[in-house]
Amino acid sequence: MDEKIVRELEGIVGDEWVITDIEKMRSYLTDETAEPVKPIPVIDVVLVKPKSTEEVSAILKLANREKISVFPRGGGTGLVGGCIPTKEGIILSLERMDGIEIDRENLMAVVEAGVTLGKLMEEADKAGFFFPAHPGDEGAQIGGLIACNAGGARAVKTGVMRNYVKGIEVVLPTGEILNLGGKLIKSNTGYSLMHLIIGSEGTLGVITKAILKLYPKFKTSITMIIPFEERHNAFRVVPKIFQSGVIPLAIEYVEKDLMEKSAKRLGLTWPCKEGVAYLLIIVAETDEEAVYKQCETIAEICNELGALEPLIAESRREQEEILKIRSEIYMALKPETIDILDVAVPPANMSKLIDRIDEISKKNGVYIPIYGHAGDGNLHPHIMKVEGWTLEQYNTIRKEIYKAAVKLGGVITGEHGVGAIRREYLSLCLSDKEITLMKEIKKIFDPNNILNPGKVLPM
Amino acid sequence: MDEKIVRELEGIVGDEWVITDIEKMRSYLTDETAEPVKPIPVIDVVLVKPKSTEEVSAILKLANREKISVFPRGGGTGLVGGCIPTKEGIILSLERMDGIEIDRENLMAVVEAGVTLGKLMEEADKAGFFFPAHPGDEGAQIGGLIACNAGGARAVKTGVMRNYVKGIEVVLPTGEILNLGGKLIKSNTGYSLMHLIIGSEGTLGVITKAILKLYPKFKTSITMIIPFEERHNAFRVVPKIFQSGVIPLAIEYVEKDLMEKSAKRLGLTWPCKEGVAYLLIIVAETDEEAVYKQCETIAEICNELGALEPLIAESRREQEEILKIRSEIYMALKPETIDILDVAVPPANMSKLIDRIDEISKKNGVYIPIYGHAGDGNLHPHIMKVEGWTLEQYNTIRKEIYKAAVKLGGVITGEHGVGAIRREYLSLCLSDKEITLMKEIKKIFDPNNILNPGKVLPM
Repeated sequence: MDEKIVRELEGIVGDEWVITDIEKMRSYLTDETAEPVKPIPVIDVVLVKPKSTEEVSAILKLANREKISVFPRGGGTGLVGGCIPTKEGIILSLERMDGIEIDRENLMAVVEAGVTLGKLMEEADKAGFFFPAHPGDEGAQIGGLIACNAGGARAVKTGVMRNYVKGIEVVLPTGEILNLGGKLIKSNTGYSLMHLIIGSEGTLGVITKAILKLYPKFKTSITMIIPFEERHNAFRVVPKIFQSGVIPLAIEYVEKDLMEKSAKRLGLTWPCKEGVAYLLIIVAETDEEAVYKQCETIAEICNELGALEPLIAESRREQEEILKIRSEIYMALKPETIDILDVAVPPANMSKLIDRIDEISKKNGVYIPIYGHAGDGNLHPHIMKVEGWTLEQYNTIRKEIYKAAVKLGGVITGEHGVGAIRREYLSLCLSDKEITLMKEIKKIFDPNNILNPGKVLPM
Repeated sequence: MDEKIVRELEGIVGDEWVITDIEKMRSYLTDETAEPVKPIPVIDVVLVKPKSTEEVSAILKLANREKISVFPRGGGTGLVGGCIPTKEGIILSLERMDGIEIDRENLMAVVEAGVTLGKLMEEADKAGFFFPAHPGDEGAQIGGLIACNAGGARAVKTGVMRNYVKGIEVVLPTGEILNLGGKLIKSNTGYSLMHLIIGSEGTLGVITKAILKLYPKFKTSITMIIPFEERHNAFRVVPKIFQSGVIPLAIEYVEKDLMEKSAKRLGLTWPCKEGVAYLLIIVAETDEEAVYKQCETIAEICNELGALEPLIAESRREQEEILKIRSEIYMALKPETIDILDVAVPPANMSKLIDRIDEISKKNGVYIPIYGHAGDGNLHPHIMKVEGWTLEQYNTIRKEIYKAAVKLGGVITGEHGVGAIRREYLSLCLSDKEITLMKEIKKIFDPNNILNPGKVLPM
């Protein structure tokens, strides 16, 4: 990077917040993407850590003037290489912008982009509230969660990230600061630029602050593990639960071998001996009695549809342990994983999709373990390593799975997003016109294409 | 309209669905906007009623080729003149596209644009489900509800229209048919063109079909009328209810004189003798006991904050009567109304906004009755007729109210939208850059500016 630019950046944020030594920014060059598909970072970058929106604006104005690429960065917990610098440029870490304020009267949180999900959950809890969204890694930062419209297990009752966002402050690549939305439940003042930016993965602007909706704290929650000998029955249960009037916080689908593997990694024991497939259902309500009643309803439905005896976890410790084992599956599989997919289909088609993936697995002799969000139609098949395979062969498998999902009314990514590694597959589920419109929108916001320009290196 | 164009339109939809006789299209030239601010329709128009998406596409291709304005139209229940033809062109009524299909397994409805809200509610009910959104007039059509991101009283628990939309089929002004989203709970495949189109008021594309989320049917609902001698106490109650963990279906704010006036118009009696201001709270749950418990919690909170004895309506008839009286306020006030405003502020600022509007009312000697959605921060002040006033004088009042809302962190329209009559005030709550971005987005979608071009005639 040009020395003059580095000096100018130092002038904006202060010397100590501009890092050029590659050894001091190793952790900023990566994310949680599986190694075999992870883009190789370009290392001719400078890491900048602004403290304020005005500093972010000044950095972007400079970058826009000089046509320097900028890679905004949150917690680096993404799974699609979205924040990895793939060109010479500036890594813009929002970590120092970590202010948070709970507005009790409006049941909202005003949160700077660098606040972690863990911190938000903690502060909400202290104030007597609850922030439901939980994409797994609590080190994720708010800016990234919104930019990527994060999902996770706890989206069944109250939705994905988009549903909580009431306002954002965003700095455009051209440096203007926009305040979109507000502490508002209703606002119909023209096109929703806010909803356009949610999920745009840092390509339209840098989110610096957000107003998020909070929920009253649940009084009780219970986690049920419901075992099935026949996995299709697990999926048959899901719509029946909703139809009965029960909307749990989470409904996860997992399989025995994965939960045992994940538990072992954590030094824990998976408590369920029976069955091969499970639903993990978290029931949480602000009324204690309602929780018990809903669990009864769920148990009855499951029993009618061939489930085995459910395990009920009531203590906080037990419940956290189950969720921990579930959350650790990715890390347990990661060393042998080529790619973790994130297909989504209409919930009623999940069973069919799993069958289709099993066929692909058998036909090609590749192990494809599957788990995911049974309430949301969102599955994570892992394409696992096969001795001697080329990337070409894996690509064929990936494409077959994508096509199977699309054929069932689905998309190639439900929550992880496009990032660097799914761009070339987008046309499987988007029309040419949609892609053209997106490209033209990008040009309006970012005429010099400086924000997350996303030139993917050959893998 | 050019005869050749009329013939071509007849070729697309059939002779009987092209109407050129102005007497046969009177009801298509208007909406529910208050008369004094309603745009005067241009009558050099042709009314076209397509039956299919392909016909809509052919009409738009023709219009785009010939640069003819197109005014898409649903139930005509809007309050801001959004569908009134303000240029020579085509009125595109979607009324014949009225197919509906309930997907029980995915808890979704697939609905063509011309289906009325009433029809959707009925079909959902028959299938054992519930569609919560209720902007008042059940003659509103789905296409319009989505294009205008409708709100209404029942948005407290499950949100405004945007929250229910999972997929849309939309025809662009250039004729392409896009299918955005799907029967999907999660989808992160690039910029959300769907959310951009929701709330774009028929300026970016013509919505022809939608996939909407349904909810399990509530087992019981109770409507509480809670009287207050001092209206600020009513607003103080609202956050306390949420904080207690109760999220009602609706929390409405109304005043005694308006409810009595509205009841009288309907030949009914407003049942509440005490108090001057009320909260109408609808509590609805899939569990009967929970409803009673929540009502108790609400009653306790209200009692602590100075409410008088609440009236409880349990029978369906009683509850419907109360809602009917509430819904009729607009019609009761309409003959003397200059403009019904739709300001929205952070919910905790509603009390302040009402005080501010009262000051404006007193200072200027104009009667400004107020009611609205206390759970959403959304109020409807009516600017009422004053003998001998000019439009100029009313405009001053309107602008003062808008400025008061914006100063309190609000916007000029929460749910009614911009339409023809609020365009000139948009800059009070949007920055120049936001407006520029919106104009540029419009150009991408509609290069010839044919869809709802919105040239407002001088009033």
